[in-house]
Amino acid sequence: MVKLHGNPLSNCTRRVVCVLHEKQIDFEWVTVDYVRDAHKSSEYIAKHPFGQIPYLEDDGFIVYGNTPSPPPTRAICQYLAAKYAGQGTDLYPAPGDWEGLALLQQGISIEQSNFDPFVSKIFYEKVFKARRNIGSGHADEARVAEYLAGLESKLKAYETILSTQKYLTGDKISLGDLFHLPYATTIETLGLDQVFAKYPAFYSWIKGMQERESWKKANAGVAIDDSGVAYLKQ
Amino acid sequence: MVKLHGNPLSNCTRRVVCVLHEKQIDFEWVTVDYVRDAHKSSEYIAKHPFGQIPYLEDDGFIVYGNTPSPPPTRAICQYLAAKYAGQGTDLYPAPGDWEGLALLQQGISIEQSNFDPFVSKIFYEKVFKARRNIGSGHADEARVAEYLAGLESKLKAYETILSTQKYLTGDKISLGDLFHLPYATTIETLGLDQVFAKYPAFYSWIKGMQERESWKKANAGVAIDDSGVAYLKQ
Repeated sequence: MVKLHGNPLSNCTRRVVCVLHEKQIDFEWVTVDYVRDAHKSSEYIAKHPFGQIPYLEDDGFIVYGNTPSPPPTRAICQYLAAKYAGQGTDLYPAPGDWEGLALLQQGISIEQSNFDPFVSKIFYEKVFKARRNIGSGHADEARVAEYLAGLESKLKAYETILSTQKYLTGDKISLGDLFHLPYATTIETLGLDQVFAKYPAFYSWIKGMQERESWKKANAGVAIDDSGVAYLKQ
Repeated sequence: MVKLHGNPLSNCTRRVVCVLHEKQIDFEWVTVDYVRDAHKSSEYIAKHPFGQIPYLEDDGFIVYGNTPSPPPTRAICQYLAAKYAGQGTDLYPAPGDWEGLALLQQGISIEQSNFDPFVSKIFYEKVFKARRNIGSGHADEARVAEYLAGLESKLKAYETILSTQKYLTGDKISLGDLFHLPYATTIETLGLDQVFAKYPAFYSWIKGMQERESWKKANAGVAIDDSGVAYLKQ
């Protein structure tokens, strides 16, 4: 049985949940109360030495993601996509398809280098600081502006790519596409999606991604309030 | 023929060169004059839409890495390790070895999440700003101190892992281990290796990595001056 030790409030956890649904893998939730730092307990750290969420257990075998930031949950999602190749959405190249493997890794790399470093830092400033009462609890707006400018410089390259093909690495969806979903959605709830809307091919692609059933399921039970803070619906 | 379009001054390029030597892959250098922004030319961007170095060409097939920062060159190195599995150091799991794949990705993820985000930003402050004359050209020492503190919090977890096993994900070297080399070496040249030396298992591991022939070859022809700036030996 696949068990996911994480929290539905966490962007990184929801990224794995999305892939679990894409792959039609039944799984059991083990909720880690990370708001109360349960991921820093010695019991948790014995499983994941960096004390981050989530980690995955598959019949006793443990694999963990690393976050923040950026590259979260890559190991977990690739493991799931490779091992469960025969079911759900095809998200991993066949053995011997080296070019497919290169394009998979390239797509993941695009998200991690050119999207996550900006959006996760905006999230930190606008949401995490308030949630954890870091500093004054207020965003450093100069830093937010710096990250938004950095993001825009990358969205131009996304626009070039997505103007000529349906997904980031070709005409077939890949893990790299799916990985954009958590932070793209959070950024929108912060009212920053006017930046996305300036790039029509990018915008249409991310909107299409958000319509996937897997993503809707990953968000079921989670709501996001006006200030962008996710919480569990009662 | 494998052609590497990059620059030996670049940490990310040297990471790929190290893997090329580990895999005993003959390759041709195509030097991109990135100090003069050759990677921002329209000719280069037609190959790599994000205008970053390096990219790899293998009999016409192109795969690019994304940098900065963090996760550079992951796509390129995994492609090389998988396609050239039959030669050089064994760096990629056999088809069907899902746990090996998970551990490979986990090791890569450790470097990218818990090492690169700190050391690459220290490099940016201490080396890149001076090289590119950004701002005053001087490091923001408050930020450097913040990144060093962040790095130390992660080195504790490295120490836990490396106290009981030889490499990051077990007793066998992996790409994740090798990926630490460029920035670890740069950090040392900046006189910051006293931070590493506080963690003896980590320190002994990274020192052992630096002794690998592949890494020595990747640095042949490149020297680093007192301020940490790499240059080509004449």
